[in-house]
Amino acid sequence: MLNKHRLLTPGPTPLPEQVRLALAQDMIHHRKAAFKDIMQRVQGRLRLLFGTEQPVLPLSCSGTGAMTAAVHALFAPGEKVLVVNGGKFGERWAEIALTRGLECVRLDVPWGQAVDPAAVAQALEADPHIRGVLMQLSETSTGVLHPVQEVATMTRARDVLLVADGISAVGLSPCPMDEWGIDCLLTGSQKGLMLPPGLALLALSARAWQKAEANPSGCFYFNLPKERDNVLKGQTLFTSPVNLIVGLDVSLDMLLKDGLDALYRKQWALTMLTRTAVSVMGLELFAPAHYAWGITSVQLPAGIDGVEVLRLAQEHYGVIMAGGQDQLKGRIVRIGHMGWVDWADVTAGLYALNRCLFAVGGYSGARDYLEQGLAAYETALAVPPGTPVERRHS
Amino acid sequence: MLNKHRLLTPGPTPLPEQVRLALAQDMIHHRKAAFKDIMQRVQGRLRLLFGTEQPVLPLSCSGTGAMTAAVHALFAPGEKVLVVNGGKFGERWAEIALTRGLECVRLDVPWGQAVDPAAVAQALEADPHIRGVLMQLSETSTGVLHPVQEVATMTRARDVLLVADGISAVGLSPCPMDEWGIDCLLTGSQKGLMLPPGLALLALSARAWQKAEANPSGCFYFNLPKERDNVLKGQTLFTSPVNLIVGLDVSLDMLLKDGLDALYRKQWALTMLTRTAVSVMGLELFAPAHYAWGITSVQLPAGIDGVEVLRLAQEHYGVIMAGGQDQLKGRIVRIGHMGWVDWADVTAGLYALNRCLFAVGGYSGARDYLEQGLAAYETALAVPPGTPVERRHS
Repeated sequence: MLNKHRLLTPGPTPLPEQVRLALAQDMIHHRKAAFKDIMQRVQGRLRLLFGTEQPVLPLSCSGTGAMTAAVHALFAPGEKVLVVNGGKFGERWAEIALTRGLECVRLDVPWGQAVDPAAVAQALEADPHIRGVLMQLSETSTGVLHPVQEVATMTRARDVLLVADGISAVGLSPCPMDEWGIDCLLTGSQKGLMLPPGLALLALSARAWQKAEANPSGCFYFNLPKERDNVLKGQTLFTSPVNLIVGLDVSLDMLLKDGLDALYRKQWALTMLTRTAVSVMGLELFAPAHYAWGITSVQLPAGIDGVEVLRLAQEHYGVIMAGGQDQLKGRIVRIGHMGWVDWADVTAGLYALNRCLFAVGGYSGARDYLEQGLAAYETALAVPPGTPVERRHS
Repeated sequence: MLNKHRLLTPGPTPLPEQVRLALAQDMIHHRKAAFKDIMQRVQGRLRLLFGTEQPVLPLSCSGTGAMTAAVHALFAPGEKVLVVNGGKFGERWAEIALTRGLECVRLDVPWGQAVDPAAVAQALEADPHIRGVLMQLSETSTGVLHPVQEVATMTRARDVLLVADGISAVGLSPCPMDEWGIDCLLTGSQKGLMLPPGLALLALSARAWQKAEANPSGCFYFNLPKERDNVLKGQTLFTSPVNLIVGLDVSLDMLLKDGLDALYRKQWALTMLTRTAVSVMGLELFAPAHYAWGITSVQLPAGIDGVEVLRLAQEHYGVIMAGGQDQLKGRIVRIGHMGWVDWADVTAGLYALNRCLFAVGGYSGARDYLEQGLAAYETALAVPPGTPVERRHS
């Protein structure tokens, strides 16, 4: 009774009550008119969110399922792809590609840094056999935002498909697929979309569709051309996760009510709040230069046990944050500010972090970090609508 | 306001209020203790339902995803399998196998009939290279229940894995996996389990695990050995469809409250209710001899448009039933009596069917069919607990 539970992880995220009530509705049949109406209603708004005129396919799987579907659809065994590998999910691209029998060129990037577009250019120049670039928009394991737009300027000029994992980016920061020239953009339901996990969304560019149509996927469950034919009729190829689609209809209403600019502005402001407060606390940001808008990763002072900090935050303050994965376990804290999370939730997370770092010792505690963070939040919200990112700082 | 909607399709099914409220709960994180507790709690009851001592894996996909996962896990390209092909989902096994690069021997069975175990024996004798039998327990497209137990007596004596699609059978009629000797049993959440679609469940026998461990699946998303390692720790390999697992915790409580015998007795009694009423109506049962316990397929009199009958049933009585698929479109009605459906729901469906058949003409209408159906239901419920199926008739 003392604390509410506040889920500040980079997915799954808290859910709005309106969405939860939609999820609780009794079942409708996925081949009947009522469901087709909903499918058609969500389709237009999904295309707006993805920034594409192509259909956005709802798949019954996790985000990793959609990554797998993309690789099977777009590449044949023996083809060569370049993987931007700067975290756990970059590594996942490589594993998926290798399992598919692709030849995989890894462009390793230190965890916490974004890939240098010049390095991608160099890799593509060096090997004209590369047929795809697999990368993350937001690398969830590090909180880095990779320069997908810049990479797209190179891939669109070549016979190279750009496949972007937008799992912790879509609905959180701009990624207009058609404008940038992304060939495959995908996401999962449990991040920016304020839904439970279990639904993935995926869109392909016109040239990606051309390739997919001629390329057997090798896995019956992942057949994107047939999925598209069904989606255009308001259906899915196999049984759809009906109640997540019903929930999506509600969450898209909420997300898009005030337009895309307002949606991204909120995320930007929450990011400014978190990063400012953490800096005032004297902590190092793990992704100093290029950072995602739905997650902030914080490096812990040497000698501090991050696992214990997270345990205390949950036990004493009801705040659930994420730690580091793999080699970062215990070394960073990842604060999720995505999904149904607002400034007060993030403030609670920052307070819990400060207090629990102090409690484990080796950290003297900070003052004024909440007020400075909230001031940064207000400033970020106050910039004129449509202000480009690079000018939001000033 | 005139009619409630009654979903009498062979999945997805209506959901109990308790389950729907569980689905509406706010999110918990899939890598934290609260979720692991639920995973461990459902595991024991899933094993009871599957009749196995092996772990039951919850996968984030539809039933077809689990079928795909099974074929990828258990067979390598070039291996030969026998497919029992007596309906749309038998055909699906063949499509999945061919997409995996397997050699596929089809044992064609007329739609509406069960496979003759002697024919399976003959096929296995004729070709010692066959390494698997892929079949349905309940063929959802026809309402047939195939003799999996009899087929298992042959496969367990050979180096042949028996893969049983229990999508419209698990939780509806007995299929004790270990006792019968099934090597892979799988199901989906939206049938007997009274949940929305989006979760599949799959278990392997000890010898199937041995093979799976040595057999690369060729599809990163479907890695059953790694799924098992995670499930044994109360997790899943990738992000789990959390709210379906939370709902499963509740639905398993309801399903197993009075034991497996009571669960199957209910399904048997609903089947007797439906089949008796349909027979009194003078209609032909499409699966006359070997029939599933969650769905009854009814042949329509010649000249009657089944699509129109279903449309009227929904429009005038709020009853949603399924038609035939593929070559059976318009020719049969499939009445689902699975999920959160009881005798009164089924009675409503039978009344709607009788009235709408009359309305389209060519059918004179029946009397006394509801009373006779309900008498058969009461009789079926009244047999002593544990009465074997073959003696429930007398």
